[in-house]
Amino acid sequence: MSYTRMSQLFVRTLREDPADAELPSHKWLVRAGYIRRAAPGIYSWLPLGLKVLAKVDAIVREEIEAIGAQEVHFPALLPKEPYEQTNRWAEYGPNLFRLKDRKGADMLLGPTHEEMFTLIVKDLYSSYKDLPVILYQVQVKYRDEARPRAGLLRGREFTMKDSYSFDIDEAGLQVAYDKHREAYQKIMARLGLDYVIVKAMSGAMGGSRSEEFLAIAEYGEDTFVRSPGGYAANVEAATVAMSEPQDFSTTAEPSLIDTPGAATIDLVVDAVNAITPRTDRPWQGCDTLKNVVFMRVSPDRKRTPLIIGVPGDREVDEKRLEAALSPDAAEPFNDDDFEAYPMLVRGYIGPVGLGKDSPSQITYLTDPRVVEGTAWITGANLVDTHVMNLVMGRDFTSDGVIDVAEIREGDPSPDGSGPLSLARGVEMGHIFQLGKKYAEALGLQVLNANGKLVTVTMGSYGFGVTRAVAMVAEATCDARGLAWPRNVAPYDVIIVIAGKDEEIVNAATTLAADLEVEGIDVVLDDRNVSPGVKFADSELIGFPTCVVVGRGLKDGVVEVRDRAKGTARSVPVEDAVAEIIADIR
Amino acid sequence: MSYTRMSQLFVRTLREDPADAELPSHKWLVRAGYIRRAAPGIYSWLPLGLKVLAKVDAIVREEIEAIGAQEVHFPALLPKEPYEQTNRWAEYGPNLFRLKDRKGADMLLGPTHEEMFTLIVKDLYSSYKDLPVILYQVQVKYRDEARPRAGLLRGREFTMKDSYSFDIDEAGLQVAYDKHREAYQKIMARLGLDYVIVKAMSGAMGGSRSEEFLAIAEYGEDTFVRSPGGYAANVEAATVAMSEPQDFSTTAEPSLIDTPGAATIDLVVDAVNAITPRTDRPWQGCDTLKNVVFMRVSPDRKRTPLIIGVPGDREVDEKRLEAALSPDAAEPFNDDDFEAYPMLVRGYIGPVGLGKDSPSQITYLTDPRVVEGTAWITGANLVDTHVMNLVMGRDFTSDGVIDVAEIREGDPSPDGSGPLSLARGVEMGHIFQLGKKYAEALGLQVLNANGKLVTVTMGSYGFGVTRAVAMVAEATCDARGLAWPRNVAPYDVIIVIAGKDEEIVNAATTLAADLEVEGIDVVLDDRNVSPGVKFADSELIGFPTCVVVGRGLKDGVVEVRDRAKGTARSVPVEDAVAEIIADIR
Repeated sequence: MSYTRMSQLFVRTLREDPADAELPSHKWLVRAGYIRRAAPGIYSWLPLGLKVLAKVDAIVREEIEAIGAQEVHFPALLPKEPYEQTNRWAEYGPNLFRLKDRKGADMLLGPTHEEMFTLIVKDLYSSYKDLPVILYQVQVKYRDEARPRAGLLRGREFTMKDSYSFDIDEAGLQVAYDKHREAYQKIMARLGLDYVIVKAMSGAMGGSRSEEFLAIAEYGEDTFVRSPGGYAANVEAATVAMSEPQDFSTTAEPSLIDTPGAATIDLVVDAVNAITPRTDRPWQGCDTLKNVVFMRVSPDRKRTPLIIGVPGDREVDEKRLEAALSPDAAEPFNDDDFEAYPMLVRGYIGPVGLGKDSPSQITYLTDPRVVEGTAWITGANLVDTHVMNLVMGRDFTSDGVIDVAEIREGDPSPDGSGPLSLARGVEMGHIFQLGKKYAEALGLQVLNANGKLVTVTMGSYGFGVTRAVAMVAEATCDARGLAWPRNVAPYDVIIVIAGKDEEIVNAATTLAADLEVEGIDVVLDDRNVSPGVKFADSELIGFPTCVVVGRGLKDGVVEVRDRAKGTARSVPVEDAVAEIIADIR
Repeated sequence: MSYTRMSQLFVRTLREDPADAELPSHKWLVRAGYIRRAAPGIYSWLPLGLKVLAKVDAIVREEIEAIGAQEVHFPALLPKEPYEQTNRWAEYGPNLFRLKDRKGADMLLGPTHEEMFTLIVKDLYSSYKDLPVILYQVQVKYRDEARPRAGLLRGREFTMKDSYSFDIDEAGLQVAYDKHREAYQKIMARLGLDYVIVKAMSGAMGGSRSEEFLAIAEYGEDTFVRSPGGYAANVEAATVAMSEPQDFSTTAEPSLIDTPGAATIDLVVDAVNAITPRTDRPWQGCDTLKNVVFMRVSPDRKRTPLIIGVPGDREVDEKRLEAALSPDAAEPFNDDDFEAYPMLVRGYIGPVGLGKDSPSQITYLTDPRVVEGTAWITGANLVDTHVMNLVMGRDFTSDGVIDVAEIREGDPSPDGSGPLSLARGVEMGHIFQLGKKYAEALGLQVLNANGKLVTVTMGSYGFGVTRAVAMVAEATCDARGLAWPRNVAPYDVIIVIAGKDEEIVNAATTLAADLEVEGIDVVLDDRNVSPGVKFADSELIGFPTCVVVGRGLKDGVVEVRDRAKGTARSVPVEDAVAEIIADIR
C-alpha cells in the first residue's frame, strides 16, 4: 500500500449546493464528493463515502459480535410466502417494493427480515439446548417511503444492521434485549452521538416492549417527550395519565343551546360565553368535547367509520393515531362518507347515539381525559345546536379509550414527576421484544427440557448504518464543511503541498510516505491548484488533520491543523511524524 | 476474541442430500450448513458460508485494488432512464427484474452497472487530465435467469465484482484491459482454479474485444474450443475458417430428382445414393445443404423470418445462434408461421427464391462452408423433390455469412494449427473492451489536450464472487464433503475432543486457546456427541486441519489430520501449537 494522491482520488468537490438538500450534512456529503443521488431516496457511494461507511459498519459489527451475535446473510429479493404467513405482505401496504419474476411469482425487496430469520432457526434448530442464539446481518433494506428525504436520513435503499434473538422463555429474551440495549449504547457513544432511549410503539412489527435510540436533533422526524423523573417516550408511545373519575351527582342535566354557524371550537366557546357565561372563568376549548370522524382503513382497504372524542383544545395527532391503529390506517371523512352517514351532522357531531352497540354501529373512542363524571359542551347532532353538561357515564359512553390527542410541552407526565418537555430526534436504532408473534405464525418450536414442544420467543434489533453516517456528519459539520471524528474519518491526514519549490514537494512526499509506513491513512494533495483551493477542499471534505508543507519549511516547520478543534500549530519537520501520530492515537 | 465452540456455532449438518442438488459442491454446501435456498436461484448464507465468501471477496479486492481500482458502490434498485438511453431496458428482455415504485415509476434491479459508472464519471470528470481511472464495486446483482441451477453457480441474486476503466484512447483501454487480465490470472491462481482464457462474444454488452476466464469443469455450461496452436474461444465466439471459392466451370447444371417422403437429410442421402450413386464414395450428409427456418425476434417482439443454410451433416448450434443474433432471439417456425409463408415447403426448402431482394424478401444467410462454386443437393421448394448440383454463386446466392453451425471435436481450427478440441467450463470472469458504446449513448466526453471534446473509451470487467465460492468447493470436494484450500477455509483448525476424561477436555481447551492467541481461527468441537459424528462433521465441513485430542493423550500425543491430503500423524502435545502453525503458514 502506498498513500493516496489527491490528484488520483475519484472525488470532485462542488461549489454549488444540491437543489434538494434539506440538511447541512446532506449538502456537504454531496458537495464534498461522498455520495450522489441516483433516484429519489436512493444513493450511490463514492470512495470517500464508502470509507466512512466501512468504519461505521465496523463499529456496529464489533459491538454486536461482542454480545455473541453470529453473522448470516439473507437475500434482499425474497419470495412472498413467508411474508404472507405473517400477514406483513398485506400490512406493509405501499411501503413494500413488490415485483413479479418471469414466471409470475410474487416477490418483494426485504424491508426487514424477521420471517427469514425465524425460518432459518426453524430449519436448523430443534431443542432448547440449541438456545439462546443471536443472529445478525448487515444488509441492504428496501422501503418505498412516500416521502424520501434528507439524503441518507430517510432513503428507499439503505443499509441496516438487523439482529434477532431466539430464546426459550421471557427471561432469556430480556437478557438478549438488555445485551442489545448496552451494545447500542456503546455504538452511540463511539459514534459520538447525543441520544435518548425512548419507549416506542412496535407498529407493523408486532410484539410488546420496544425502545428507540433517538439521536437528539431539532430537524429529526421523531418527536419525543421527557419528564423530570426520567420518563421518555416517542410521541407515538407517550401515554397520558388517565384522569380520575369525577363526582357528577350535582352536575345539572344536559341542556341544548342554539349555536348558529358555530361549526368550530372557537365559535362554540364564544357562543357559550355569550349565552351562559361562567362566573369563575370564561369557557375554554378544554371544556368542549370535539368528535373527530375518520375512516379506519384495513390493509385490505376495508373502510369503517371511527369517531374519536378529544378535549376541544387538542387535535388528534396523526402519527399517534397511525401508531394506535396500525396496521390499519385512518383517512379523513370525505363528502361521500358524510352522505353515507346522514346522522353525522358536520360541525355538530355529538356522542349520543354513537357506539358499536348503538343503532348507528359507529365505533366511538375517547381520550383518557374523558372519564366518568366529566361534563362537556359538545355537538347535539342537530344543525346549529350544541349541548351543555353532557356527562360521560351518565349521558353517553364510549367503546373504549384511545390515547391519540396531541401532546404539549408542559403536559403532566405519566410518571407524575412534573411537566413533560418535548424534543425531536432521529431514530438510529430500535429494539423490540417481539415475543412469539413470528414464531407462532411460522411454526418455530423447539423441545423443552421435558420433551414438550414450545414456541420460541424472539427479539428484533435494528440499527441504521447508512443513516448513522449522515447523523455523524450532521452532528459534526460546520459552516465550512464536514469535520469527522477521527474514528470514522475517511483518512487520518491530508498533507497539503503549499508551494512549488522542489524542497516543499519533497518534504511533503517524504512525510506522506513516513506516515503511511506507520499505518496512518494519508492523502497527499499534489494537485496543480492554489493552496487556497486545497485548504478549502481539506475543510470541506473534513480530514481530521491537515498538515501544511509550505513557506514555514525554510524555518524547519510545518503547520498541523486540527479540523474539529479549529486549531493550528507549527511543528518542527523532524517531529512531525511523531506528533501527528500522537494526535491520532 | 476467543475461539469458537462448535456447540455454539450456528450450523447443523444434514444427512440427506437436498432434492435439487445437481453438483457435489451444491450438495455439500447445503449439507455442511454453508447456504440455504430461499427461492429458486436465491440463497441465504449461514456463518460458515459467509466466512468463505469474505475470504474470496478479500482476494478479489486485493488484486483489483493492486491495479489501482477505486471502490464505489451503486444502488441495486435503479431508475429505468439510463438503461433506456442505452437500449438495455429493452434488450435485457425477461432477464431483467423490473418493478414500479409507489408513484408508478419504472425501476429495475441492476444486472450490471455500465450505465451508472458511465454517468458518475460524466458527473465528476471533464478533462483528459482526469483519466485514466478504474472504478469498481462488489455488488449484489440480479438476473431473472430462465433456468437458475446448480446452487450458487447460476443464481438470480449473486455477488459480482464489477470494474470499469475510462480512457482517452484505445491504447489506454488496452493497458487497463491487460491489467485486468493479469489481475484475473492472479485471482484464479490464488483460488487454485484450473482455467482457460477464451475469446468471447460480448452479447448484450456491446463492444469489441472480450475474453472469458473459464474454470475448466466437465459440468460447465460453457463449451469452448482449443487448437494445438493456442487458439481458444468459447463456442459462441469460435469461428470456422472460410472455405476457398471453388471452380464450378465443369459442374453440371442443376437437375431435379424425385425424393418422395425424404424430408430428412438421411432419407435424402439414401434416395440420392439409390438414384444416382457417386463412383468415388457414397453421397453423405455433408453434400447436402440444409435450410433451417427461424423467426428472428427483436427485443420489442417483432418477428421476421430467417433461413440459415448449413451443410446437412451439421445442426445449427442454439447458443451460437443466440450469440450471433443478440440482442434479438430466434424461435423455431411454428405451424402458423408455415401457413403465413406457403412458398416454404416443409422438408423441401431450397435457397432459390430466398433473399432480402427476392420476391419472398426472406433473409437467407449461409455457413462459411457454403462458398462460391460449391455444389449442393438441397430442397427444390416442391413437395417430394430435391435438386442436385445447385451451385452457390451460379444458381443461388445468400444475404451473407452466419457462423452458427455446431462445432465438432476435430474440426480444423481457424489458426490452421490442427484439429480443434472441445471442453467445458464455468465462466468466472469476463473482460470487455466496451469502446465508446456507453459513453456515446450517455454523452460521456472530456476535453482533450487540444481543448476538443472527445468521447471516452471504456472497458468493463466482471468477476463472479459467489460463483467462485461454489467453484472452489466443487474443485476440491470429495466423497466425504468439502476440503477447502487453507486460504479460503472458514476456519483453520478444528480440535475434536474425543473422550470424556477431564484431562482430554482440558488439553483440547488449552490447545484451542493457545492457537487462538497465535491468530489461528479455531473451532473446538465440544459437543456432546460421539467422536465418530465429530470426525464426519469435520470432514463434511472441510476444516483444513483436524486435531484429535483423545486416547493418545495418555502417551502425550494428539493426532493432526490434513483434510486435503488425507494424511494423519501423531504429534507430541507440547509441539502441537508450533507444528500446526507451521502447517498453516
